[in-house]
Amino acid sequence: MPGGYTVAVVGAGLVGEKLISELRRQNFPLKELRVLARSTRTATLAGESFDIEAATPEAFEGVDIALFAGTEGEKGASRQLAREAIERGAIVIDNGSDFRLDPEVPLVVPEVNPHALKDHRGLIANPNCSTTQLVVTLAPLAREFGLKKVVVSTYQAVSGAGRSGVEALENGRTDAFPKPISGNVIPLIGSVGEDGYTTEERKMREESRKILDLPDLEIFATAVRVPVHTGHSESVYVETEEDVSLEEALDVLGGAQGVSFSGDASDFPTALEAAGDPGVYVGRVRAGGRTLEYWCVSDNLLKGAATNAVQIAGALVKARV
Amino acid sequence: MPGGYTVAVVGAGLVGEKLISELRRQNFPLKELRVLARSTRTATLAGESFDIEAATPEAFEGVDIALFAGTEGEKGASRQLAREAIERGAIVIDNGSDFRLDPEVPLVVPEVNPHALKDHRGLIANPNCSTTQLVVTLAPLAREFGLKKVVVSTYQAVSGAGRSGVEALENGRTDAFPKPISGNVIPLIGSVGEDGYTTEERKMREESRKILDLPDLEIFATAVRVPVHTGHSESVYVETEEDVSLEEALDVLGGAQGVSFSGDASDFPTALEAAGDPGVYVGRVRAGGRTLEYWCVSDNLLKGAATNAVQIAGALVKARV
Repeated sequence: MPGGYTVAVVGAGLVGEKLISELRRQNFPLKELRVLARSTRTATLAGESFDIEAATPEAFEGVDIALFAGTEGEKGASRQLAREAIERGAIVIDNGSDFRLDPEVPLVVPEVNPHALKDHRGLIANPNCSTTQLVVTLAPLAREFGLKKVVVSTYQAVSGAGRSGVEALENGRTDAFPKPISGNVIPLIGSVGEDGYTTEERKMREESRKILDLPDLEIFATAVRVPVHTGHSESVYVETEEDVSLEEALDVLGGAQGVSFSGDASDFPTALEAAGDPGVYVGRVRAGGRTLEYWCVSDNLLKGAATNAVQIAGALVKARV
Repeated sequence: MPGGYTVAVVGAGLVGEKLISELRRQNFPLKELRVLARSTRTATLAGESFDIEAATPEAFEGVDIALFAGTEGEKGASRQLAREAIERGAIVIDNGSDFRLDPEVPLVVPEVNPHALKDHRGLIANPNCSTTQLVVTLAPLAREFGLKKVVVSTYQAVSGAGRSGVEALENGRTDAFPKPISGNVIPLIGSVGEDGYTTEERKMREESRKILDLPDLEIFATAVRVPVHTGHSESVYVETEEDVSLEEALDVLGGAQGVSFSGDASDFPTALEAAGDPGVYVGRVRAGGRTLEYWCVSDNLLKGAATNAVQIAGALVKARV
């Protein structure tokens, strides 16, 4: 499309704003950019002024691609509006969790399973923030060594809970988390199911299996909130099908698509450094026999949300699917 | 000893102060309490005024039990002075890491391996803070289900690095940690060895094996510093020799010595709540097949250091060994 595409961003929270800045940073070919939300207002988002329109079915008239932020006030918007947008000819990319495990909806990380895009029926799901950085790092290991089991513990930033999460850390706002987060660590994200796992832990398990196309992969996740503004960290233990030496592990992770890597054993990435950067960082690699351990960090609002969503949009445009 | 014991606390830092408050809280039978450090001064510690004496060999004359804090300015004090203290008739309990893996030195957590005390030769080692809470929770699981493998990721408080660690969090002091800790998470504690593991991670592995008397236990630890003042948290994944149901796991952990437990699946302990409390807290238990996961929290200065050291002293006095 020579004149570019008409894109609607649905949601004006932390992720909505990052969707706008990522469309600009990735030079997405835009003809028109609309911002839709529950309430109309004029607002400055990512340095630009927008007349935010009401997220109604009619607002999707003429939209080629609709990016649903899927957080905060706009949670559930895709459940109400995705079908309306698709009927009006838009392709919906949804950062919310409503459709991720629907077998008819591709769940895509472009570095990992771009081929899944071709089967879309107008709706493509963007994974959970903590899942995306995990599968970006697991995919090359799966290809080279085979995956048998994954044990992961997360260190997740408050901005993953949107503006209320940030305010909990900065001003002591009390409705974002079940206990105080300042000077504390909260080992519960979402709600707890009968088996003791939280919704966040289930997302990491089920979404990773779907994206990696390894439906039987054993994944044991513990999702934990830490007093960090932005940047999720993960401590990952992997059992492989084949033997893996430290040298091989460093080679494969160092050459992996989308992974930034420090080979210096005493260097390591942290959330403070990864915040604002669209990449996935890996460090602290240990390996031997059929086990491998590493630390990975990524900006939960960027690769964990907006960057990946806009990469999906870019891949669609490139493939014209 | 009807008149009580003469006890020397070596070190006047965070752990030294907690050793004094724990001697009082545990009603240890004291005849005299001396505080020894590198530099002499009058100081208020745990609400009491002390004339801190120089930690010289002669200062141990008449001392029955010497508690070495083993941190900060007094690091390495036991290497210089423990032998001198023992020659003067004292039993040394060392919270430092110098002798923990010495096969002639018992490494003791009273709930786990009190029997090891009887073989002491004047010196008993107190485990690393992150090890103690781990073995208190692993020991009952080892007895009931057998342990095959442990994968643990820690969320360790800055006070584990002494006063300089606390100042790094509170005032931005820059010499305590390799990167900023405020609003960040640092996946490196101690220094990194050739195999990629840190000294802290090796301590957790080697000390746990020794205390549990399971020299071949597979333990994969990742030790991480978080912006929390006091209270270490741990995400623990365990593979057992026998099948373990969620109900059995809750039973065994709930009835374990030294473990405080919430059976409510959506409740969980945090560092803020555990700080100031001598116990080890467990929550977020998940189990099935031969795997078991949980979250444990403990005050790193108390059960992780001073509480356990004074419990060892109490056990010695009770057993008259």
